[in-house]
Amino acid sequence: MATEEPQRKPLIFIGNDDGYQADGLKFLVGIARQYGEVFISSPSTHQSGKSSALTVDVPLHATLFAEEEGLTAYHVSGTPVDSMKLAVSNLMPRRPDIVLSGINHGYNSGNSAIYSGTMGVVFEGSFLGVPSIGFSYGEYTAHPDFSSCEPVVRRMIELAVAGKLPTDVCYNVNIPKCRQVEGVKVVAAAPGRWTEEYDCRIDPHGRKYYWLTGNYVPSEPDNDQQDLYWLQRGYATVVPCRADQTAHSAISAISELI
Amino acid sequence: MATEEPQRKPLIFIGNDDGYQADGLKFLVGIARQYGEVFISSPSTHQSGKSSALTVDVPLHATLFAEEEGLTAYHVSGTPVDSMKLAVSNLMPRRPDIVLSGINHGYNSGNSAIYSGTMGVVFEGSFLGVPSIGFSYGEYTAHPDFSSCEPVVRRMIELAVAGKLPTDVCYNVNIPKCRQVEGVKVVAAAPGRWTEEYDCRIDPHGRKYYWLTGNYVPSEPDNDQQDLYWLQRGYATVVPCRADQTAHSAISAISELI
Repeated sequence: MATEEPQRKPLIFIGNDDGYQADGLKFLVGIARQYGEVFISSPSTHQSGKSSALTVDVPLHATLFAEEEGLTAYHVSGTPVDSMKLAVSNLMPRRPDIVLSGINHGYNSGNSAIYSGTMGVVFEGSFLGVPSIGFSYGEYTAHPDFSSCEPVVRRMIELAVAGKLPTDVCYNVNIPKCRQVEGVKVVAAAPGRWTEEYDCRIDPHGRKYYWLTGNYVPSEPDNDQQDLYWLQRGYATVVPCRADQTAHSAISAISELI
Repeated sequence: MATEEPQRKPLIFIGNDDGYQADGLKFLVGIARQYGEVFISSPSTHQSGKSSALTVDVPLHATLFAEEEGLTAYHVSGTPVDSMKLAVSNLMPRRPDIVLSGINHGYNSGNSAIYSGTMGVVFEGSFLGVPSIGFSYGEYTAHPDFSSCEPVVRRMIELAVAGKLPTDVCYNVNIPKCRQVEGVKVVAAAPGRWTEEYDCRIDPHGRKYYWLTGNYVPSEPDNDQQDLYWLQRGYATVVPCRADQTAHSAISAISELI
C-alpha cells in the first residue's frame, strides 16, 4: 500500500477489555496518535477475563463518543472481540494497518493470556495479517501511573509503523509496575497453574456461592526464558504468540495412534 | 495412581458450552459412563462462543441436578470454563483422570476453536496434565442424531483410559454430519478468516443494531493437512492443540529486533 499512497498515515485500531473509559486506553491512545490516525472500538463496560468470547444471543449497539482530527472512537455493547470485529467489519473506513490493545490494568503473563480480552483483540488483529500488539501493566488500581510504559509502547509502535514487526505472530507485552523498566526481554509465557481458585461463602439464605480468586504458581519459577521471571526483576516482556493453537509437531505421532 | 489403587475406575469430568440440558452432553455422558465414574459440571444456560471467558464481577452458584451410582452432575451459573474450574477446585472429590467436553452442537473447526467454550474446557483440562478431548458435531439443530459420533468418541475415550494419549497436547475432535464417518484424520486447524460478519438492522427507534453472522473462508481450501478439507469429505478430524499460544520458534528473531 505504501507505493500506492505514500503520504497516508497508518490507521491504528485500538481496543481493550477494561472499557472505553479506562485510563490505560487513554494513555495508549495518547501515544498512538503521534504515529497515525487512531480508531477506537472498546467495550461499553468493563470486560476483564472475557478471552475471545463473542456475543451470539443478543445484537450489538455501537455508540460514537469521540470524533476529531485523527481520532474516531466508538464503544460497543459487547466483549472486547465483539468491539474489534464489529469495528473492522462495519465501522472503520478501511482495514487497520496496526492493531493495538490495552493498556490493560493488570498483567496478562503466564497462562493468563488465554483468559485475556486484551489478547483476544490482538488475536483478531493477527487474523487480519497486520502487526498486532497487546500491552498490560502490572498494576491493578483504577488510576495507575502508566508513564513507565511509555518507552516500551513507543518502541513497539515504531517497529510496527516501520513495517519491521513480523506479522506471522502477534505480541503480548507486559510491563512491571516500577519507575523505569530495566529493559525488555523476548521470552515464552511461563507455564503454571492457578490454585485456591474460589472463595466459598454462604449467602443470607444459607446457599453457597463462589468468588473467583486464586494464585498463579509457575511450573518453573527459575526459568529465565519465561515472562514471570523477568517481570519479577523489573523487565518488560514481549511474548510472540499465535492465535492458532494447533500443536503441529504432535500431528504425526498422534496420527499413528488413532 | 494405578499402582496405588488398581481397581479404581477413572474419574471422567465432562463439561460443555451448550448447557446442562443439551442433547450432545447427554450423548457423551451415555458413552463415558461405560468407561468410568462421570462428574458433570456444565453451564446453567447456553454459553456458545464464550471461549475461555471467566466470570469475575459476580459470584457463581452451583446446583446439583443428578446424583446416582457412577454419576454426579452440577450446573453452574457461569461460563464453560467457570463450570470446569469451580468443579475441579471445589466440587469434585478428587482431580479428574480424563477431561471431556461436548458434544458441541456445531463445528469447532478452523479458527473457530479460539471462540469455543467447548475447547475452553479442554484447555483447562490440559493445564491439569490429564488427557483432555473436545468433541463437536457438524449439525446445528437442537436435537441432532449423534449416533455417527459414537465410534470416534469411543476410540478417543479408550485411548485416554488406556493412558495412550499424550498429555502435552489436548484434542479438538470434529465429526461431520453423516450416517457413518469415512475415517479419522489427524490434521491442523484450517487457517482462514470470517467475512460478512455482522447483519446491520434498524430498530423501531431508528437506531442501528448488529447481529453476529459471517462465513468462514479458509486460506487454503485444497490443503489436505487441514481439518476443513476432511470434514467436507465425510471424515472426522482430530487437531492436537496447546493452550499456550507462545510462538517459541519466533523468539530469537524477535529478540534481535527489540
